[in-house]
Amino acid sequence: MAGIVPSRRVRGTPFTPGVQAAGAKAYTVYNHMLLPSYFESYEADYRHLKEHVQVWDVSVERQVSVKGPDALRLMRQMSPRDMDKMADDQCYYAPICDHNGGMLNDPVLIKIAEDHYWMSIADGDLLQWALGLAVGQGLDVDVVEPDVSPLAVQGPKADELMARVFGDVVRDIKFFRYKRLAFEDTEFVVARSGWSKQGGFEIYVDGSDYGMPLWNRLFDAGQDLNVRAGCPNLIERVEGGLLSYGSDMRRENTPIESGLARFCNSPEGYIGKSVIEAQKADGPNKMLRPIAIDGPGDLPHNALGWDVYADNKQVGLIASAVWSPDFNTNVSIGMIDRGHWDPGTVLNVDTGTGMRPATVKEKFWI
Amino acid sequence: MAGIVPSRRVRGTPFTPGVQAAGAKAYTVYNHMLLPSYFESYEADYRHLKEHVQVWDVSVERQVSVKGPDALRLMRQMSPRDMDKMADDQCYYAPICDHNGGMLNDPVLIKIAEDHYWMSIADGDLLQWALGLAVGQGLDVDVVEPDVSPLAVQGPKADELMARVFGDVVRDIKFFRYKRLAFEDTEFVVARSGWSKQGGFEIYVDGSDYGMPLWNRLFDAGQDLNVRAGCPNLIERVEGGLLSYGSDMRRENTPIESGLARFCNSPEGYIGKSVIEAQKADGPNKMLRPIAIDGPGDLPHNALGWDVYADNKQVGLIASAVWSPDFNTNVSIGMIDRGHWDPGTVLNVDTGTGMRPATVKEKFWI
Repeated sequence: MAGIVPSRRVRGTPFTPGVQAAGAKAYTVYNHMLLPSYFESYEADYRHLKEHVQVWDVSVERQVSVKGPDALRLMRQMSPRDMDKMADDQCYYAPICDHNGGMLNDPVLIKIAEDHYWMSIADGDLLQWALGLAVGQGLDVDVVEPDVSPLAVQGPKADELMARVFGDVVRDIKFFRYKRLAFEDTEFVVARSGWSKQGGFEIYVDGSDYGMPLWNRLFDAGQDLNVRAGCPNLIERVEGGLLSYGSDMRRENTPIESGLARFCNSPEGYIGKSVIEAQKADGPNKMLRPIAIDGPGDLPHNALGWDVYADNKQVGLIASAVWSPDFNTNVSIGMIDRGHWDPGTVLNVDTGTGMRPATVKEKFWI
Repeated sequence: MAGIVPSRRVRGTPFTPGVQAAGAKAYTVYNHMLLPSYFESYEADYRHLKEHVQVWDVSVERQVSVKGPDALRLMRQMSPRDMDKMADDQCYYAPICDHNGGMLNDPVLIKIAEDHYWMSIADGDLLQWALGLAVGQGLDVDVVEPDVSPLAVQGPKADELMARVFGDVVRDIKFFRYKRLAFEDTEFVVARSGWSKQGGFEIYVDGSDYGMPLWNRLFDAGQDLNVRAGCPNLIERVEGGLLSYGSDMRRENTPIESGLARFCNSPEGYIGKSVIEAQKADGPNKMLRPIAIDGPGDLPHNALGWDVYADNKQVGLIASAVWSPDFNTNVSIGMIDRGHWDPGTVLNVDTGTGMRPATVKEKFWI
């Protein structure tokens, strides 16, 4: 693939000098910013992530800040999750839907204060949805993108590395909870979260000028832990069933189709509720499923998504697929029609370089 | 710069096979799609564009379709331009603003029918703003992204090439007007418009399957016209003062600051009107200006934007700058503070490789 030309419109991050010095070999663009795709290789990065600790520039997870007297009112409209049960230090993964239940994003919601929430977003300008709802209804709330750039620390040695920089208090942070921890003359929201199944933290770096100082502190503190720069890893995230909004599901899909029914529990009349509740009751007509694709690990890159067939009829689409060294199969995520998604069902996948048998799995691999 | 990894989230277009075969050397990402940055080189592409005719894959100009009984009501809220004067076959360039006058996008609005508009958008999910306003107010309107991918034909020979494919009727299309013209078994909106000052058309290709057939027809018909694949050209668009939303201006800027006051003439109570009218009356505190930067054409690529100084005080930012062979100077667009933007004012630009004198111009170069 040809190179990418950055501009102010497709911008770097506070950590870009570190990412470039660490030798990112390819990038994608996410929320108008550069996101590294891999450093050494997908497989080498994956192996290291599962054994050591990595620092990830995930600045692209921009925050949509919703603050003001009507903040909770707006969040209740937008969130299928029950906001009333949210603790003061909690983070909620939440699909955000339009009036037809179509997914517009799947952010992590963070309760900053009673009248202040952040939405840490997937790729897409969710700010415009929140702002449109707020302005359309005359809500008393500010909707802005603050200068906050998350830095993730992921992998089995993440606790040790973070403890060296932020103190042993990090070990007490529970899953999807956060603490405000000091760094230099400021403090950051530090949550136990991140887009891997290897454990770790996300540091919401508030103020771009703190970016490289924090990056350097983490690398200085972690030399003997074999710390490296990394990024969300395609292999590891497909093994773990971590969904990529825009690839695995889009506005044409509901959270029920996306396997996210457990995150739709709000008693409020949130936007999209009638469609979502009906699908919960009746079952959706298609659903995201883990699928093992037969054959060796020589699949082409599936940027377009691959059609899935039962006999000669198309019954689905696989948007994410890659060879898993640990599970010795091609792991993938596909949106499969009802009647074809039972575990053990054998389907055919058109990979662009030939058809391959593929089997629907009961669960993701990790 | 390292390469880019495409995915379903950062997708190709109906014309990508043609673009790749034509040898695009670099890409950017725009509205979750690939947009070529140049083919031979910025300068070679520029020279060819000014002399011959080019076919541009501008599928990234996604359409936000607003259709239904309340379509005009929503457009009147969103548009600072007077929608009542819009002819049935007209296209309007329009800044779209939030309640503070901050720009959210600068699409071309196209009147498809009395109850149906398209917004051909710059980089940013304007669909979510329109949808938020519609859902927030319970408007009776559908807001969707149709399968429409614009293909631009630009350059002095554009009329001749288009006449060969669509008939001489194309010569009668006036600037920012359109006709529906037949292609195979369908018809497309064909407008005299495009993101260059060299003249030409944009074909709103409705249906991805028509993409490569049309691409091939244009290239077959234009061989003796020296037709080539091209793309919006950095040099030509800066010479002509064509603004790039996200680079030259963003949500922190109003249309008045962006030099777009003439597009803010609606008598309706559109969103952002009070701020925009006040700035029209009092003048803004900063404004986009054409700026000639001294010295040879060896400036670095200015992806971050460059600070502009008067004495030692920062008075502006230049987001787009490049050497112009035809005007024998470095052409640029900068947002400059009041008191420093008069034509002839000499400022200093921090290019990252040293300070350069620069002069504010009266007008853009073409």
